[in-house]
Parts: sequence; C-alpha cells; structure tokens
Amino acid sequence: VSIIPAKDEVLLAYKRVEPHVHKTPVLTSTLLNEIAEAQLFFKCENFQRGGSFKMRGAANAILQIPESDRNKGVVTHSSGNFAQAVSLAAKSIGVPAYIVMPKNAPQVKVEAVKGYGGQVTLCESTLEAREKTSKQIEQTTGATFVHPSNDIDVILGQGTASLELINEVKTLNTIITPVGGGGLLAGTALATSYTLPNCRVIAGEPIEANDAYRSLQSGNIEANTTTNTIADGLRTTLDNYNFPIIKEFVNEIICVTEQEIINAMKLLYERMKIVVEPSSAVALAAILKNKQHFQNQKIGIILSGGNVDVSKLPF
Amino acid sequence: VSIIPAKDEVLLAYKRVEPHVHKTPVLTSTLLNEIAEAQLFFKCENFQRGGSFKMRGAANAILQIPESDRNKGVVTHSSGNFAQAVSLAAKSIGVPAYIVMPKNAPQVKVEAVKGYGGQVTLCESTLEAREKTSKQIEQTTGATFVHPSNDIDVILGQGTASLELINEVKTLNTIITPVGGGGLLAGTALATSYTLPNCRVIAGEPIEANDAYRSLQSGNIEANTTTNTIADGLRTTLDNYNFPIIKEFVNEIICVTEQEIINAMKLLYERMKIVVEPSSAVALAAILKNKQHFQNQKIGIILSGGNVDVSKLPF
Repeated sequence: VSIIPAKDEVLLAYKRVEPHVHKTPVLTSTLLNEIAEAQLFFKCENFQRGGSFKMRGAANAILQIPESDRNKGVVTHSSGNFAQAVSLAAKSIGVPAYIVMPKNAPQVKVEAVKGYGGQVTLCESTLEAREKTSKQIEQTTGATFVHPSNDIDVILGQGTASLELINEVKTLNTIITPVGGGGLLAGTALATSYTLPNCRVIAGEPIEANDAYRSLQSGNIEANTTTNTIADGLRTTLDNYNFPIIKEFVNEIICVTEQEIINAMKLLYERMKIVVEPSSAVALAAILKNKQHFQNQKIGIILSGGNVDVSKLPF
Repeated sequence: VSIIPAKDEVLLAYKRVEPHVHKTPVLTSTLLNEIAEAQLFFKCENFQRGGSFKMRGAANAILQIPESDRNKGVVTHSSGNFAQAVSLAAKSIGVPAYIVMPKNAPQVKVEAVKGYGGQVTLCESTLEAREKTSKQIEQTTGATFVHPSNDIDVILGQGTASLELINEVKTLNTIITPVGGGGLLAGTALATSYTLPNCRVIAGEPIEANDAYRSLQSGNIEANTTTNTIADGLRTTLDNYNFPIIKEFVNEIICVTEQEIINAMKLLYERMKIVVEPSSAVALAAILKNKQHFQNQKIGIILSGGNVDVSKLPF
C-alpha cells in the first residue's frame, strides 16, 4: 500500500479530535536556546491527556469507525502509552476499550489502563498470543482493532500536534520528533508538508533501535537488530502504512547514543522543569548532537510523552 | 512599621516587572481535580526565569532603586532562589549583582548564581558574617541591599504572579501559596484583595517550620522552633514588613507533615509531569489534607519554583 492522505483529511482530523485532546502548551527556554544556539519551541505532549501524543491518534481512529461498529468498542494490544491512550479516548468518546496486555507487564501500567477505564485481558507475552487474544475479543465483542502506529487514521491524529505547533509559532525551519513505530513521524511530516511546506521534518532515533534510519537509507522497511534502549517507546518498527509517508516527506533521521538520550533528558528536567519519558529526549539529543546544522534556526520539538517512573530516573 | 501599599502600587509593579519576567502558564489536570474533588489551577512559577517566582520581586525591587544608585548595583545574601533571581534580574536590567553566599553553600548553587551573572563573595555561614560582608560590599561599591522577603517592593513584585493568575482564570474561590519568609504570601494576599476581593487567600506551611502559623495565631512574629523540613525554601521567618499584610489579608495557614509534602510532590511529577521543588508541593499538600473544606471550589495554586536536584528526589 502507499496511501498519502490529502490536505483536507489532515485538517478534518484536527476538527475531529479537538474536543477530546488538550491543546498542549508550547514552552521555550532561554537557557536551552543558548545551549543549542538556536530557537527551540517545545510542544509539550507530555502534558497531553493520558500523558502522551498517542491520545490524538487513538481519538481520531476511534471516531473514524462507523457509529454502529464504534459502539461495540475498540481493541488493541499494547503495554505502553497507546494502551492508556485508547482507554482514555474510548472513555472520552463513550465506547468500551479492550486492552490486551502481556502477563509480565508492570502492574503500575495495568493499573493505569484500568484507571482510564480500559478492560484489560492478560495473555502470554509473545506477539502471537497478543494477536490471537485480540482476534478473540474482536470476534466475541464486535470491537474494532486499532493499531498503535501503522494506521492512516492514527497517523492523521498524531499529526495534529504539529498542526497546533505551527499554528502557534507560525514560522519554523525544522520540526523534529522521535521515531519508533512511525505514527508520530509520519503524521508530523504529512501535516507539516501541507501547512508549512518549507519546514524540514526530521527525526531522532536511538542507535540501539535504528530501524527507521536504516529503512530510509535502504528504501525498504528494515527490522531492528537490537532494541536495547532506555527509550522504551521507540523499540517498535515502521510498517507499510507509515513508511511510504516517511519516505516521501521526511528529510533526515539522526541517531543518538544512550548517554546522549540521558543527558538530553536531564537537561529537560533541570532547565525546562518538566517530566518527560526517555523517548521525548531523543529529539533534543539529536539537535544537540548536530548543533552546527541547526544554528540560529527556529526548531519545533515534539516532546512525545511524560509516562516514566519518576522514582527510577536514569540520573 | 505597618505599610499597606495601595491598589495603584500593585498594578504599577506589574507594569514595571512585565518586560523582565515570563508570563508563566496556568496548567490544569483532570486527574488531580478528581483527587482533590475541586478545580485546581496551577500557576507554574517553576517555569519562571531563574526557576522561581523570586525573579518578580527581585526585578521590582531593583527597578525601584533611583537610577543613579541602581547603576552601582545591588547586593543580597542568600544561598537559595533569591540569589539566582537577583543575579538574573540585575543582568536583565543591566546593573551589577553582588551575592554573598556562605562558604558551605553547595557548589552547584554557587555555579548557578555565577551562570546568571552574579558576582559571588563567599563568607562564613553565620548571619553576622553574611550581614557584615554585605555591608562591606555596600560601602565599597555603592550597591543597594535588597532583602529576599521583608521589603515592600519585593512583596509587590511577588504579588504579580497572582495578578496574572486572576487575569487568566477570572474567578477563583481560593488562592494558596507556600509560606516561608512571607514575601510571596504577603504579595499574593495584597494583589488578590484588590483585584478579587471575595477570593480567600491561604497558605501551606511545613509543621517543621511553622512560624507563620503560630504568628497568625498569636498576633506577633514568632520564631521557628525547628527548620527540619525538606522544603528548604520555607525555613525562613516572617518579619515586620510582610507580617502586617499577612495579618490583615490572609485567611488561614494550614500545616503539613514531611510525608504529606513528599506525597504531593510526587503527584505533581507523576500527574502534572512537572518538576517542582519541595516548597511548591506544600500548597497542594495543604489542599489535599483538607479536601472537605475545598470541595468543588476553584482553587489557584502558586507553584513557587522548580530548583531542585533532580538526581536526589525524595521518592
């Protein structure tokens, strides 16, 4: 497949999700500007409902299900931010959410999903078990399956963060996001290409899970060879719906080390006074690693989320 | 003394400091509203320049010095947020800042002050040594001394945070701040009484440093009997300029335990995704301790600052 949604669809997605998401603030920091030698605009999706941008894609995907089916609910398998996002978006829209989670998921994540109203089914931690359990729930409940990143409506929803950012800041030379499963990056690239066509869209990725970097190099979807990164939200890979969009609209992917991620994360805590998860720090780390390429630019940074165990920070 | 500044002076202070301070965002959290059973509006002075509300008072006090004297600079003795605030405000205004700090102050705080452009003089850690060193600097440089909390211009500056909060949220039943030296509380009480007269102004205070609570009870300025609190910004005491204002306009002071402070601080990190110093959590702790008194109210909470060692969080 290679579906590139039109501009209309991008703008309609924003109208659709707007009542269900926070318009998150854009923060700036003189100190970080001095460090980066550029003007940084941080779109704080760590303050988003559910603690990450994934609320946007979840809401858009659920609202795109025809109403008769939608009332039967949605199902997904995830142990991360998308599980919380689907639970909360479904609650906000008024339909049931069935979340398949691996038995070995941390109890705190299971509780968070339940707290947002999701109905949790535990299964073995293999992908096969998760998919089989999801299928069973689809069949018994009539719920619709929603994929965390490889779904056009999810991609369109994730792009609404950069629409808000562009609408607020007006001019930007570059927008950067982290890349994991590719939903945020594809959505951002799409929305930016239609509303601020001269703005470059780039991504930061951990060297330890650099499938997107290698996919862009080779022109084909590559697998991860390791996923040994602190950025737990970025261990997933691109797929057939988001890769064509990324290939078409993304200018560059910059890979960073684990230490660079931790250093950038600490800067965000110390200088910006905000709580972000490691994945969010990957984008800032990529800018700081290549300062000379971004000097004096206006750079939008999507801070993807803030779901982290604050009693176990890596610094 | 018992000077109660007029409404004009409150509004003029805002015009004066506005070019030198950030208009900090007001954040809300559905989850914290549910926990508190009230509507909470967090005025994020942890995002203020210099990392705390003290920038406001420092800027106003410096700008109130007659210009011929102002150019000779300002001097203060502090090892906390006020040292950073005076350094940054002086830099912003274009005059020198002389900061007297105790020899045993953490190196990281000395570096922070230098980073903001302050000229640091180290001395013995006794109050006598600090005052003597400040006096010497006043005499040799002609710099003007500025007190961190017991100064009418500092008080007026600190009150500008609640002016912004009231201007943004319009209606509030209660505004709460932490209380340490009393500058923020007095300024908030004054500004609120003039611009939102039916709004109650209250404070949270650590039981371990409850001089303000006992002062309000007795009607006289009381000393701290202990200062054994994690809220290091609140170990100071009220004094003759701020106490009359607090006595006149503050409705109540609520005391909280160390564990209540830490619990509230963790909630702010986990739910609001923001970095605050322990002193900031004292106000939220006071609300949560007395939920039944605030049910369904609209409550403004001044989050005083975010200067904390994030590698040594108490949870």
